[in-house]
Amino acid sequence: MIEPRTLKGFRDHLPAQAIAREKVLEIARRVYRSYGFAPIDTPALEYLEILTGKGSEETDKQLYRFKDHGGRDVGLRFDLTVPFARFAAQHMHKLGLPFKRYHMAAVWRGENTQRGRYREFMQCDFDTIGTTSPVADLEMVLVVHDLLTAIGVEFTIRINDRRVLAGILGRLGLTDRSTAVLRSLDKLGKVTPEAVAAELAAHGVAPDAVAALLEMAGLSGSAGDVLTRLERLVGDAEQGRAGVAALRTIIAGARDAGVAEGRIAIDPSIARGLDYYTGIVLESFLDELPALGSICSGGRYDNLAALYTKQSLPGVGASLGIDRLLTGLEELGRVATVETPADVFLVHFDECHVGDYLRIAAALRAAGMAVEFFPEARKLGQQLKLAAKRGFAAALVIGSEEFAAGTAQFKNLATQQSVAIDWHGDLHVLVDAVHSSLEALRHG
Amino acid sequence: MIEPRTLKGFRDHLPAQAIAREKVLEIARRVYRSYGFAPIDTPALEYLEILTGKGSEETDKQLYRFKDHGGRDVGLRFDLTVPFARFAAQHMHKLGLPFKRYHMAAVWRGENTQRGRYREFMQCDFDTIGTTSPVADLEMVLVVHDLLTAIGVEFTIRINDRRVLAGILGRLGLTDRSTAVLRSLDKLGKVTPEAVAAELAAHGVAPDAVAALLEMAGLSGSAGDVLTRLERLVGDAEQGRAGVAALRTIIAGARDAGVAEGRIAIDPSIARGLDYYTGIVLESFLDELPALGSICSGGRYDNLAALYTKQSLPGVGASLGIDRLLTGLEELGRVATVETPADVFLVHFDECHVGDYLRIAAALRAAGMAVEFFPEARKLGQQLKLAAKRGFAAALVIGSEEFAAGTAQFKNLATQQSVAIDWHGDLHVLVDAVHSSLEALRHG
Repeated sequence: MIEPRTLKGFRDHLPAQAIAREKVLEIARRVYRSYGFAPIDTPALEYLEILTGKGSEETDKQLYRFKDHGGRDVGLRFDLTVPFARFAAQHMHKLGLPFKRYHMAAVWRGENTQRGRYREFMQCDFDTIGTTSPVADLEMVLVVHDLLTAIGVEFTIRINDRRVLAGILGRLGLTDRSTAVLRSLDKLGKVTPEAVAAELAAHGVAPDAVAALLEMAGLSGSAGDVLTRLERLVGDAEQGRAGVAALRTIIAGARDAGVAEGRIAIDPSIARGLDYYTGIVLESFLDELPALGSICSGGRYDNLAALYTKQSLPGVGASLGIDRLLTGLEELGRVATVETPADVFLVHFDECHVGDYLRIAAALRAAGMAVEFFPEARKLGQQLKLAAKRGFAAALVIGSEEFAAGTAQFKNLATQQSVAIDWHGDLHVLVDAVHSSLEALRHG
Repeated sequence: MIEPRTLKGFRDHLPAQAIAREKVLEIARRVYRSYGFAPIDTPALEYLEILTGKGSEETDKQLYRFKDHGGRDVGLRFDLTVPFARFAAQHMHKLGLPFKRYHMAAVWRGENTQRGRYREFMQCDFDTIGTTSPVADLEMVLVVHDLLTAIGVEFTIRINDRRVLAGILGRLGLTDRSTAVLRSLDKLGKVTPEAVAAELAAHGVAPDAVAALLEMAGLSGSAGDVLTRLERLVGDAEQGRAGVAALRTIIAGARDAGVAEGRIAIDPSIARGLDYYTGIVLESFLDELPALGSICSGGRYDNLAALYTKQSLPGVGASLGIDRLLTGLEELGRVATVETPADVFLVHFDECHVGDYLRIAAALRAAGMAVEFFPEARKLGQQLKLAAKRGFAAALVIGSEEFAAGTAQFKNLATQQSVAIDWHGDLHVLVDAVHSSLEALRHG
């Protein structure tokens, strides 16, 4: 006998988790589509050279790689950005630009699982490439806004522009040390400002520059206030001014599109990595669980696919961390723990009536309801117990006597209360009654 | 520069293909759910011993296998049945029985690509385990029926029962040669009956037995007729009689559930593999493309997870071959070649009005329409050309003059005809007009 087990860092999704995930994916799909982002898919396996070309040392180390049947060096994708870069370079002429795509798929990383990380997880990316238009930047923010609104959580989107950082660093004469400085600033929130100040000083940053950097990173308040103060900090640095102007455009555009004040905050401490992003950067947090970290992050980049094509492909996009979001929703008790996607559990009371049950189930399904008809004529209590455990909202009980009398019991499985339905053997009447009983049960 | 390319046998899904696939997946999800099948997911990677335990020599050879970072022997799943068996054995106590699940996911096989096969493809399985009830068998047939009906194709579901075959083989004294005989019979349709007869004779099957086998395999006509003739052929062989009775139950139950006469045919030549299935077996074909092969196949098995648990888990289920189905739909010209999931292309006419465009797009989205707002103020003709190429149904054109006059042009991109909308600057009026114009465009 072989022990049934999953690999370390891998996991099964049981129905309750899979249903919750499908729900979020469905919302993401709908929101992405509502802005004209089109789905694409790419293979899980790619030539190794495609994957290692762009990756950092860390992702290279985590890569699942092997030789395939033809002796080719191949690897499992570790994100959806590298495959998209390869895809864009390969199919550009067919796609036309600008091109907007979303991609929801699993990625694999041989990470250290002690940090609570999984080695297989899902990403839900969307990007607009082939345009430098600020409208595309704004749309990224709006998509994240609509997505988190549709999921039904309280959230804050924090944005910054890498040019603001670059402008300030330039003004402070720190352009050559920007990598080290940004890495130190990125630690804010995890360590104290004093510790960051000490680290900056160790990098040879002068005390007044340290003060200016910490002032910048610590700016908070209304978007308007933060922008005014950032404007002062960037002075006449051209890049910095462009960055501040871009942030102003986002704030104004979001207002035009109906985003509530305060949903979007300017957070000058956000840098998001060191090389890739060149314009707007975005992170988003659940208001009730900020420590969970950003659940949806992204930004603008100058060139997606430099490794695979000479054509420059500027773009902007973000990625929903669906596993982190689901962890958060679960922690907040916002994930229903139902193990069934169906509405109604149809009790199999009497084998003689299987034909009738089938007719009833078919009629309920034709009216848009999902119905599980229990396959065996087990004891009523046993069937109802299983139905309640699985989270069915309601059970429909029709035994021989009920068939004879043209009645039925509609049982609310949460309250255990039953309502009698008189359907006089008329399927339409039964279907309407079940439908309205379900509606009533759902809305109070 | 790295050449952007996919591995042999692997492919990208561009928007048109990905949209078509998402549509079918959505239908499958809805139909599976309507019967109470719940989603699950399992890792792409499994311990090698899990995967090689059950596989045939052929699947073992095709397995993508390697050593992971921890030196473990691992492999990519080659189907969804083996992972489900492992899953069921591992989580049985939490799931309860009977348990109904669906699973839609990619699988990998290092197949010979010369046969036009892909090395990565998707499967969409559904199964009911933990019950031997004929209701579960019938539901498999009904799910396949509802699924193909919802997809909107003409199809025939062909069913048989392995016990009918076993009964007839028993009566003919061929039980010990059943593997060879069934393998020969499986070739019917690909080679002539004469060639099959010769092969059977070569296996030492006596002439009258060959005649009986070919008679059985060739039976056709109404389900009732075929059943009557099968009854004669199985004689008093107990297994055979049970099989015929089970087929009768299916035909009657399908009628109760409202399935049209003729949708389900009894086809005694279907064996579907040699060891796994023990009861009903099912294949389904597009009426316009029977040569495409079965697009949805399945059957009943005695024990799903014998390798991983001592508990017997009988079950029944089928798998939608979504790639084959999509190939068929494409061949039939039934796949719309749109490259966008959005309804309306909002032309970016005038940069001064970006705020207005954003308000309009947000209002249309809030009313359930998907809207792509072009990110750049390019020439009108250029924008409309891209919109038409991508398959948008309609474009909404509002320039400075239109904004001043409170009007808009709703352009049908297929006919190039425009309708003027008077909205007097009232967003609600505009949204309603666009909505009804879209409806009109879709339904005539």
